[in-house]
Amino acid sequence: MFPYKTSFQLLRNLNTPLYLQLSNQFIELIKSHKIPPETKLPSSRSLSELLGVHRKTVVACYDELMLQGWVDSIPKKGTYVKASLPILTQQEFLEEDSVLSNEANFKFSKNENFNKKRVNTDESWVLVDDGISDVRLTPLKDIARTYRRLCDRKRTIKSLSYGETFGSGKLRKVLASYLNKTRGLQYTEENILITRGSQMGIFLASKLLLEKDDIIVVGETNYIAADVTFSERTDRILRVPVDEDGIKTDDLEQLCKRKQIKAVYVTSHHHHPTTVTLSAERRIHLLNLAKEYRFAIVEDDYDYDFNYNHAPILPLASHDTQGNVVYIGSICKTVAPVFRIGYLIGPKDFVEEASRVRRYVDRQGDALLELTFADFIESGDLDRHIKKTLKTYQQRRDFFCEQFQQELCDYFEFDIPKGGMAVWVKLKSPYTWKEVSEVAKKYKLELGEWQRYDVSRTGHNAIRIGFASKNEEEIEELVMCFKKTFQEISLKTSSVKSFVR
Amino acid sequence: MFPYKTSFQLLRNLNTPLYLQLSNQFIELIKSHKIPPETKLPSSRSLSELLGVHRKTVVACYDELMLQGWVDSIPKKGTYVKASLPILTQQEFLEEDSVLSNEANFKFSKNENFNKKRVNTDESWVLVDDGISDVRLTPLKDIARTYRRLCDRKRTIKSLSYGETFGSGKLRKVLASYLNKTRGLQYTEENILITRGSQMGIFLASKLLLEKDDIIVVGETNYIAADVTFSERTDRILRVPVDEDGIKTDDLEQLCKRKQIKAVYVTSHHHHPTTVTLSAERRIHLLNLAKEYRFAIVEDDYDYDFNYNHAPILPLASHDTQGNVVYIGSICKTVAPVFRIGYLIGPKDFVEEASRVRRYVDRQGDALLELTFADFIESGDLDRHIKKTLKTYQQRRDFFCEQFQQELCDYFEFDIPKGGMAVWVKLKSPYTWKEVSEVAKKYKLELGEWQRYDVSRTGHNAIRIGFASKNEEEIEELVMCFKKTFQEISLKTSSVKSFVR
Repeated sequence: MFPYKTSFQLLRNLNTPLYLQLSNQFIELIKSHKIPPETKLPSSRSLSELLGVHRKTVVACYDELMLQGWVDSIPKKGTYVKASLPILTQQEFLEEDSVLSNEANFKFSKNENFNKKRVNTDESWVLVDDGISDVRLTPLKDIARTYRRLCDRKRTIKSLSYGETFGSGKLRKVLASYLNKTRGLQYTEENILITRGSQMGIFLASKLLLEKDDIIVVGETNYIAADVTFSERTDRILRVPVDEDGIKTDDLEQLCKRKQIKAVYVTSHHHHPTTVTLSAERRIHLLNLAKEYRFAIVEDDYDYDFNYNHAPILPLASHDTQGNVVYIGSICKTVAPVFRIGYLIGPKDFVEEASRVRRYVDRQGDALLELTFADFIESGDLDRHIKKTLKTYQQRRDFFCEQFQQELCDYFEFDIPKGGMAVWVKLKSPYTWKEVSEVAKKYKLELGEWQRYDVSRTGHNAIRIGFASKNEEEIEELVMCFKKTFQEISLKTSSVKSFVR
Repeated sequence: MFPYKTSFQLLRNLNTPLYLQLSNQFIELIKSHKIPPETKLPSSRSLSELLGVHRKTVVACYDELMLQGWVDSIPKKGTYVKASLPILTQQEFLEEDSVLSNEANFKFSKNENFNKKRVNTDESWVLVDDGISDVRLTPLKDIARTYRRLCDRKRTIKSLSYGETFGSGKLRKVLASYLNKTRGLQYTEENILITRGSQMGIFLASKLLLEKDDIIVVGETNYIAADVTFSERTDRILRVPVDEDGIKTDDLEQLCKRKQIKAVYVTSHHHHPTTVTLSAERRIHLLNLAKEYRFAIVEDDYDYDFNYNHAPILPLASHDTQGNVVYIGSICKTVAPVFRIGYLIGPKDFVEEASRVRRYVDRQGDALLELTFADFIESGDLDRHIKKTLKTYQQRRDFFCEQFQQELCDYFEFDIPKGGMAVWVKLKSPYTWKEVSEVAKKYKLELGEWQRYDVSRTGHNAIRIGFASKNEEEIEELVMCFKKTFQEISLKTSSVKSFVR
């Protein structure tokens, strides 16, 4: 007989009831054919005696096994392991306790474009970011209070179930009115799809606009995450040069004459990564080209709120009279990245189709968070928050640029950005970012993914360095780290030189 | 001279400062060439007199126009509209106030598979759902309290910035331990990607597993949203029959011998839509086939928690020793759909790639909500909630089945489901759902998307009717609506019959 007495381990102090522990262990033994098909199990009385458990426990266990389909109970004869159960094949060489779930036993596609580099995020290190907000300024308590107040309201219950893929009707209405007022747009809520942030907007636009072999045009330097997103859909990403007035629309026009362009992606307010603003002249030119050649302009307005020298420049979408612009933005940069609320705005038919696609990606957004932010915007809290942070970020930009100019002008050159959260910093010859990033590690300075800025290998030798996330003390620390890094590099170089002499 | 005096509308009680109102209106006039390129603008003194505003306002406006690139200021000569500005072309026939943003002026793809039917969601109507939870049972206050307490903690600030695409490390750890304990799995947190819910899991798995022309196998009745998701990737969705023991794995084996299968999608716990459970025998058979033919099993365990007759049946993933199973689930059904937290679990290499794809869809999840639910699970609140709702849903299932049997047995037949939130209800001949759904409208009964259950047109004549979301009173109301509907149909039929006689 099977060694029932020694084959089970039952623990009385577990959450799992005894009968379930017993049946689960039975299943393992049956699966592996240690108790083979057609085996007659001991009677409940004898097994309960063998194991020293109550007979009811064994009866419950056998019931469970029967309901789950592992055994048959034949009246007046007893309980039998099902006859037809196949054995669960195991690879012989596997050790009992080896981790079995490292590698898939099936094929799946891997995209080499996806960045796999892990960036050091050790808190004792100084990190160079590409322009992110300072989350310490987030009005978290206000938001949490609004959230909780909302949860206390009776009618909130309705919002807990499945809802519109478009997002909360309230937030769409509030956003339409807010964006129309602050950005000169003329949309209604029906033009708005609430997304999880700009990235989802780019993803959805890319999915709808690009089929294999379709052409999308971007700047010769471009926001890398957008590049990767487009590359998932098409191999034909064409690049036009970018100068101090943004992407060169004359070059785009030449392209349009020769090829059929499906879409143009622009970060018109502050070009990513170089931070320049698309000039008024080129804005109009771009819009006219879109109308004539019937392509979509995907306008990613990722940092509209942060302008230090003048009022924000109205987006292309505010001049779009023919339905050529798909306007993408989010509050992630303005409030905090953790609040994943963004929007995709455009012609109604496009937005409707985008919401259908979104349904099969992510069903719907977080209605509670969306309602919280509808409140946050409507009450004027968002505006007050922007005003406050704008002032802080402007001071940080000034301090950052001053410090970099004073302390690091031998190594870096840059223009003072008119807005945004980062400076486009060019490394002077003969330095290379590769060397700088390596030496920097000694001084606990992490340069992050500096390689990503020169996708088309033009050798511009610049990267973005964010200033908004750092207070003055932290900016000084950053400068100090860079200084030490360059001093060490210079020392090495000069010692090599003197050695060569 | 241009009629400056009558061309501007300045309102002192707006949020927008006067100088910005003025410059925005200037931009409109310049864009449309109403003030043509090279026009000399009036001096600030004369314009301020013309408009009755302070001279400083005009100076600020001209500065703004210059900074934005619309005008040039030439020392000692004055302010001129830029020479090179192209005119923004407008279609002549457009009325001033027509809505311009209904139709895109570019092409984009539309997927005919995406359901476009709008379902009546009027609250005075009785809605048939396909098995959703009752959001009135959501422990919303507890969750909101946890959320707010979390926001009050200082170290929460770190979680506000960009984070891991995999999701909160804390939640991954808590989930691994919770799922291992409750579902017999053997995963570590590195096998877990936090998603926005099951749908995102299906989307990501589909994206990674299926290239054009790859074969995925599903049940002959199948969860429609999964079908649509797969159809976005491949045209080759093959179907095997489903009986009372779930999908027929013998048929699958025949398929495997003839064709290369990339993946099999199963809702093994309760087959969607028919609610049957995959038998133990077929579970082992399916796993053995996956090993032998090296395909992925995408196991969508959407309502594991809801079993009324016996303990939940352990998922296929709990028997997966070779890395063949991709396990998908969520708390959306268990707690409330608004809390968009789910998981995709599988071999490490697969999960890593899935997180890379997810980055370009949605960057990352909501760390605050993820931490909230880590707390909710760890504290035992989730278990308590499940216990409580399980009892309620069981009572509702029993009441629903009793009522339907008593009152509607002339029209419907069904088996009592062992778990889940819905009954698979077959309409008796000669009735058709089309007629029923139309007549039902008279009695304010909305049958929803009943067409979607018979995708491969087998004529099974059944739909899912959810019971979990309705209390006894509401179930009675539902029964009453159906009764009236059938009475009217019968009356019509008999009057036709008597007319024919």
